[in-house]
Amino acid sequence: MALRTAFTDLLSIDHPIASAPMGGSAGGELAAAVSNGGGLGLVGGGRGERAWLERELAIVTARTSRPWGVGFLAWAVEVSTVEWVLDQGPAAVMLSFGDPGPFAARVHAAGIPLIIQVTDLDEARRAVDLGADLLVAQGAESGGHGGRRSTLTLVPAVVDLVAPVPVLAAGGIADGRGVAAALVLGAVGALLGTRFQASHEALVDAEIVKAIVGGLGADTERSRVLDVARDSGWPARYTARVVTNSFLDTWRGREQELERDVDTRRAYREAAARGDLAVVSVWASEAIDLITEVASATELVRLIAEETERAFTCAT
Amino acid sequence: MALRTAFTDLLSIDHPIASAPMGGSAGGELAAAVSNGGGLGLVGGGRGERAWLERELAIVTARTSRPWGVGFLAWAVEVSTVEWVLDQGPAAVMLSFGDPGPFAARVHAAGIPLIIQVTDLDEARRAVDLGADLLVAQGAESGGHGGRRSTLTLVPAVVDLVAPVPVLAAGGIADGRGVAAALVLGAVGALLGTRFQASHEALVDAEIVKAIVGGLGADTERSRVLDVARDSGWPARYTARVVTNSFLDTWRGREQELERDVDTRRAYREAAARGDLAVVSVWASEAIDLITEVASATELVRLIAEETERAFTCAT
Repeated sequence: MALRTAFTDLLSIDHPIASAPMGGSAGGELAAAVSNGGGLGLVGGGRGERAWLERELAIVTARTSRPWGVGFLAWAVEVSTVEWVLDQGPAAVMLSFGDPGPFAARVHAAGIPLIIQVTDLDEARRAVDLGADLLVAQGAESGGHGGRRSTLTLVPAVVDLVAPVPVLAAGGIADGRGVAAALVLGAVGALLGTRFQASHEALVDAEIVKAIVGGLGADTERSRVLDVARDSGWPARYTARVVTNSFLDTWRGREQELERDVDTRRAYREAAARGDLAVVSVWASEAIDLITEVASATELVRLIAEETERAFTCAT
Repeated sequence: MALRTAFTDLLSIDHPIASAPMGGSAGGELAAAVSNGGGLGLVGGGRGERAWLERELAIVTARTSRPWGVGFLAWAVEVSTVEWVLDQGPAAVMLSFGDPGPFAARVHAAGIPLIIQVTDLDEARRAVDLGADLLVAQGAESGGHGGRRSTLTLVPAVVDLVAPVPVLAAGGIADGRGVAAALVLGAVGALLGTRFQASHEALVDAEIVKAIVGGLGADTERSRVLDVARDSGWPARYTARVVTNSFLDTWRGREQELERDVDTRRAYREAAARGDLAVVSVWASEAIDLITEVASATELVRLIAEETERAFTCAT
């Protein structure tokens, strides 16, 4: 059984699996490894830091001849940066969080699929109006930033709303069972983040990988506290799921007070710069119960594709 | 393709679909209608009000010759009430929320399956220790009371933890796509609540049914505010998902203040007794986007079973 979907057809890839463009950690090595496994590897362009992008896109183009893409934060990246990236040969560009409006025409002019990630039905409607070729419906189970809706209920609602535009599911998916769930919910594949953070190719500190592999979903929470503490600039409507730490225990529910507390925020940034795990953001999916070892991302894509097929065999 | 699973075998039913034992609203008519459709109908025994149970169990035994069960709130029901129900011929008894310990031996002595609903991994471990024959892993997408974990991540984690004990998925499932997702996640079926609230047989006020059918998942939220307002006695760790209303808008995040405000709580209870939808608890799943019409529960079971099979056909 080949899991061929509108997503694998659109991108000419083998498996309906994409890696999330996690800012800073999804570099060229990770994206290339995922693409070499038959999925779609997405470089985490984040806010569009040019030096980082030049280095990582050089790596991805050197390491794979298969389709790869780049994702950006719509609220933070400059149009000129996206235009520069479009010249480097990505197979797709993805915009997440904020208004993708300023970028849509540029991506379409480059003749490649425009992927827009959405966290609710209003964002889904807007993405379709902009001519998105593929949506990512991301639930609140996701590691890092996201919205309020859960993947299980958001995905079918978005699929119904935007049909026939194809939809990937994201948030809380870390193995083939989750990819299979995405497919039966009506999605054409799944986008996985945290599962690929715990890979050999991600640009992630070893201590953070250890926290993911050893952590439990019950120890994660969505919060704006760490964004406030580090003056991240993130729009308040998007919270981030992280592994709970002592700083969060202290400041949970006190975001406004923290905004006024200049000294605490300065001390936080200093501790975070030292990599102090008692305060730093360990972005992690609620699905980390299912992540118990580090592996190569190429192998992970193949393994998850096999698990996906097995999930169907076992269930029916 | 017949969706035969360890759940359909255990209960001798046709479809891997159960209706949630929603206190007060899942009476004998609803349970019988679900069982007559080939699922497992569960009467909502709640805290175990004897007069209500006598009336509703008389109805379910009159209306169906198929297997049906009863569910109770473990934190509230008396052992003697469960013992009385066991004499009325249920095919299974389900305990949710709180310690099922005092009831396990009685259910086993009656020679029927013990179903225990869990909201996290610790509760799942405890349920297995008590010899549960079937677990329900309930995610926070559910309408009414529940825990913090999401269905998509909780179900596979519980399945892995308790294997080979079978697991049903609950929370955020309202159609066949959701049941199919439960199956590929490793569950042996799904338990649906809100979908059956919007049925002809549920004991639910027409205005509340209208709020469910017309509502969106984005308009629901988990909260303890309404439990505090109505002095419900619910353990604080279980919040309830309801359709947002103006009372919630006023008191969100101010639970402790509300506990001290005797006048507001009295006024709340008076308004709730009048059925004022600006304050009353409209318990609703985050999946209400998918619930767009009222139907007979017997028809719903058949329809959802067909959708489940179609979800597999489309995905593979």
